[in-house]
Amino acid sequence: MKPAPRLTALSLFAGVLTSLTCASAGAIDYPDAVASDPATLGWMVGSPPPPARIIRFADGSYYQFPALRWSFSNFRQLMPTLNVSRGLAAPSVLVQAPDRAIDALSFNTLDSHQPLTWAQSLSATYTDGIVVLHRGKVVYERYFGVLTPQGQHAAMSVTKSLVGILGATLVAEGKLDPAKRVDDYVPELANSAFGNATLRQVLDMTTGLKYSEDYANPDAQIWAHANAGNPLPKPKDYRGPRSYYEFLQSVQAQGRHGDAFAYKTINTDVLGWVIARVTGQNVAQLLSQRIWSRLGMEQDAYFSVDSIGTPFAGGGFNAGLRDMARVGEMLRNDGQANGEQIVPKAVVDEIRGGGDKAAFAKAGYGLLQGWSYRNMWWVSHNPNRAFMARGVHGQSLYIDPQAQMVIARFASHPVAGNAANDPVTLAAFAALAQHLLQQP
Amino acid sequence: MKPAPRLTALSLFAGVLTSLTCASAGAIDYPDAVASDPATLGWMVGSPPPPARIIRFADGSYYQFPALRWSFSNFRQLMPTLNVSRGLAAPSVLVQAPDRAIDALSFNTLDSHQPLTWAQSLSATYTDGIVVLHRGKVVYERYFGVLTPQGQHAAMSVTKSLVGILGATLVAEGKLDPAKRVDDYVPELANSAFGNATLRQVLDMTTGLKYSEDYANPDAQIWAHANAGNPLPKPKDYRGPRSYYEFLQSVQAQGRHGDAFAYKTINTDVLGWVIARVTGQNVAQLLSQRIWSRLGMEQDAYFSVDSIGTPFAGGGFNAGLRDMARVGEMLRNDGQANGEQIVPKAVVDEIRGGGDKAAFAKAGYGLLQGWSYRNMWWVSHNPNRAFMARGVHGQSLYIDPQAQMVIARFASHPVAGNAANDPVTLAAFAALAQHLLQQP
Repeated sequence: MKPAPRLTALSLFAGVLTSLTCASAGAIDYPDAVASDPATLGWMVGSPPPPARIIRFADGSYYQFPALRWSFSNFRQLMPTLNVSRGLAAPSVLVQAPDRAIDALSFNTLDSHQPLTWAQSLSATYTDGIVVLHRGKVVYERYFGVLTPQGQHAAMSVTKSLVGILGATLVAEGKLDPAKRVDDYVPELANSAFGNATLRQVLDMTTGLKYSEDYANPDAQIWAHANAGNPLPKPKDYRGPRSYYEFLQSVQAQGRHGDAFAYKTINTDVLGWVIARVTGQNVAQLLSQRIWSRLGMEQDAYFSVDSIGTPFAGGGFNAGLRDMARVGEMLRNDGQANGEQIVPKAVVDEIRGGGDKAAFAKAGYGLLQGWSYRNMWWVSHNPNRAFMARGVHGQSLYIDPQAQMVIARFASHPVAGNAANDPVTLAAFAALAQHLLQQP
Repeated sequence: MKPAPRLTALSLFAGVLTSLTCASAGAIDYPDAVASDPATLGWMVGSPPPPARIIRFADGSYYQFPALRWSFSNFRQLMPTLNVSRGLAAPSVLVQAPDRAIDALSFNTLDSHQPLTWAQSLSATYTDGIVVLHRGKVVYERYFGVLTPQGQHAAMSVTKSLVGILGATLVAEGKLDPAKRVDDYVPELANSAFGNATLRQVLDMTTGLKYSEDYANPDAQIWAHANAGNPLPKPKDYRGPRSYYEFLQSVQAQGRHGDAFAYKTINTDVLGWVIARVTGQNVAQLLSQRIWSRLGMEQDAYFSVDSIGTPFAGGGFNAGLRDMARVGEMLRNDGQANGEQIVPKAVVDEIRGGGDKAAFAKAGYGLLQGWSYRNMWWVSHNPNRAFMARGVHGQSLYIDPQAQMVIARFASHPVAGNAANDPVTLAAFAALAQHLLQQP
C-alpha cells in the first residue's frame, strides 16, 4: 500500500533518517556545497519569503535537496518538539587553541585514492559545522550555510548513540538487565518480534526483524513507521498505527535474534520505550537529567515527537555542535566532565570494547571492515581504538582515544547513506588524528 | 462562515489569545487551582499516556480547561516554533534575597472587597509561576503545576509589549518614523485598513479596524486570522488567506484612525511586518539580537509561527519566567542591564509617560480607569507610576518604579480576559508594592 500523500513528508523524513546502508550518489549529479549553500539560496528569507524559497513540512519540500540543507538546521520551525533542558547554570568553557595547520592537511580518499586537503573535505562532505577538540581544547571550529554556534542541527541517527548511553547506564546501575526479554519490561510488545528478543540484542541491533528501510519500495515497513510517528493529523481514511508505540507492537519477526547485526532504527525506538517504562521518564527528560544538565551545555537540545508526545528515540535529536563535542570529550575522559562522573566508566569501557565483529561482518559494510556495533555505537577497532556515532547525511561524533581527539560534525550531504561520504570522512578523520598524534 | 473543524484548534488558540476585554467567569464553575493542577492530573505522563490524558494540538483539546494548564507550559511540544537565542555566554546572576513576610500580606480584592493573603492570591489567579524582584534581587519565587524554573511558558499578549519595545527602539534610532503611514513601509497593505494608518496609531492601537475578537461569533474576523496563521496543512476546500501577512492585507476599515484605543492583536502583527521589512529580520531574530542575547538570559525563548515561518508577533512568545523578570528589571533601570544600555532610555521614558488617556477611556475597561496604552504597554498612571505588559489568562510583567519592584507572572486562569483576575491581581501587586516601599 502506498502511503497517503499527506503523510509523505514525514514518511520521507523518517525513511531517510533510518537508511544508512543504501543510497550512493549513483548517476545523480548534485550541486556542490557552494552551489547548494542554503544561506546563498535564501530559504525562508523575506517578509514573506518568495514562494520558491518557502520550505514546508507538510508538502515534503523540506527534505528535498538542496532545501534540506536549510531544514537540517531548522527542524524546530517545521514540527513540534520536546525540549532537552541544559539547566540554568553557566556553561563550561571550551578553551580555544586553534591549529592553523589543519586546513592544509592532505590525505587520499578511500575510494578513488585522490588527494584532498582537510579544507576541501569540508565542502566535499557538505559540512554545516565541525568542531575538533584535542586534549579538550578547540583546535578547529567552522560553520557553513545557515548553521551558527547558536544554532541546533539534526543529529539524525547520532540520536541512537545517546539513547544507547542512557540504556547502558541503566544496565550499569542494575535498573535494566540485558539478559531479560523486552516483554519483561514492555508487556505490550509480547506479540511483536521484539517480545522474545533480549535487551542486549536490542542494544546491539542483532534482532531478527521483518522491517525494510528501503524507501524506494512503497511497501517497505518504514512507511508505516513514519506514518505512525507523523505528528500531523491523520487523514480520515487512515487505519494504521497512530504512534511509535503502536507501530512497534506490529513488527514481525524475520530470521533469528542474535545471528547478525542488522541496523534497524526501530531497535532504538524500543529501547526508548523500555527506558520510559522503567524510569518513568522519556528519553528527552532522562537525557536532560543525566547528561544535558550536567555537562555545562551552552544550549538546550530537542527531540521531534509523534502525536502523543513520544520523542523519536531512533533519530529525532537536534543540538548545538559545541555541545555534541562536549559529549564526545566526556566519553574520551572515561565518562567524566567538570570533576564529576557523568556516565559510569563501565559504560564507556563497554562501548570502547566493541561488539560482535562476526555478527557485524554479516551486514557487509564495505568501508567498515573489522568494525563492530555496541550499545548503539560504531566501533572501529583500529589501532587508535576510535569509535563513533553516525547519522545519515554525514552526522558524526568521532572519538579517537589514542589521538586524544574528538570530532563533532553536522552535515547535509545530498545522499543519505554515509557510504557516500565515508571515503572522504574516514580518511580525513584519520589524517587529522595522525597530525594531532605528532603534536608535542 | 463557520471555520472548518480541522482549524478549530488554532482558531480557538488565537481567538482566546486576542481577547482581553470580554469574558468573565459568569455562571461557569471552574475547578480551583488545586483541583485543576496539571501535575496532579498527569497530562502526557506515561508510555503511552492514558488516552484521556493525551493533549493534541490538532483536535483543540490543548486549549480546553483544565488541559490548557499543561499546554501553556508546553506549546513547543504542540506546534512548530522559531527560536529566540540567548547566545552562548554565562547567564547573569539573579541574587536571592527571599522576603518571608510576603506570603502573609493581606489585602482586599477590588470587586467583592474580600480579604485575601498574597499566598491565597496565587491559587486564586491560577498562577503557574511568579518571580518578584525588589531593587534587582529575588525576594519571591514560586512555581506550580508543570512549570519549572527551566521551563518556558506562553506569554500570550505580553508578546505585544516586547514587539512594542522593538518598534519603539527603531523609532528612537530613526529607522522608523511614527508619523509615516504603514503603506510607506509595507506597500502590500495599501488597500487594507492599515494602509493610511500611521505607525504611531498602530503602536498605540488607535487604528479603526473592522475586526472582531468576539470568538463566540463564528463570523468574527478572528477566525479568519487564526485559520490564516494555523501552521497545519489547510483543508482542500480552504480558500482563505494562508499566512498572517495575507490576512493583514484583507483587513477593512471601521471608524476613524486616532479616535479611540481599541485593543486588536492585528496591530502588533502589522508592526511585526513593518519591523521585518525595515530590518530584514523577523521579530524573533531581532528580539534575540537586541535583547535576548544581551540580558544574560538563562534560556532561549521561542515564537509560534505560521506555515511560512512568520512569528506570531501578536501573541506567540514563550519564555522562562526568570528571563521575563530580567526584561522588567532592565526597563526599571532606564533600559540598562549588566552595565550596558540595552534599550534606549527614550523608549522607556516614552512608555512610562503613557499614551492618550481620553482615547483609552473610550474602550471602557472598568478596573483600568485612568490608565493609558503606549507602544503596546499598559500604563497605570498611579502614584507609583506602574506600567505593565498583559496577556490573557493572567500573564503579567509589572514594573513599579516607585517601589523598585518587578513582578513576572505566568498563569493559566480558566477565563481568558484579565478582567476575571484583575480584582485579585492588581490589588495583590499594589499591596506588595506597599510592603516593599516600607523596607529599609
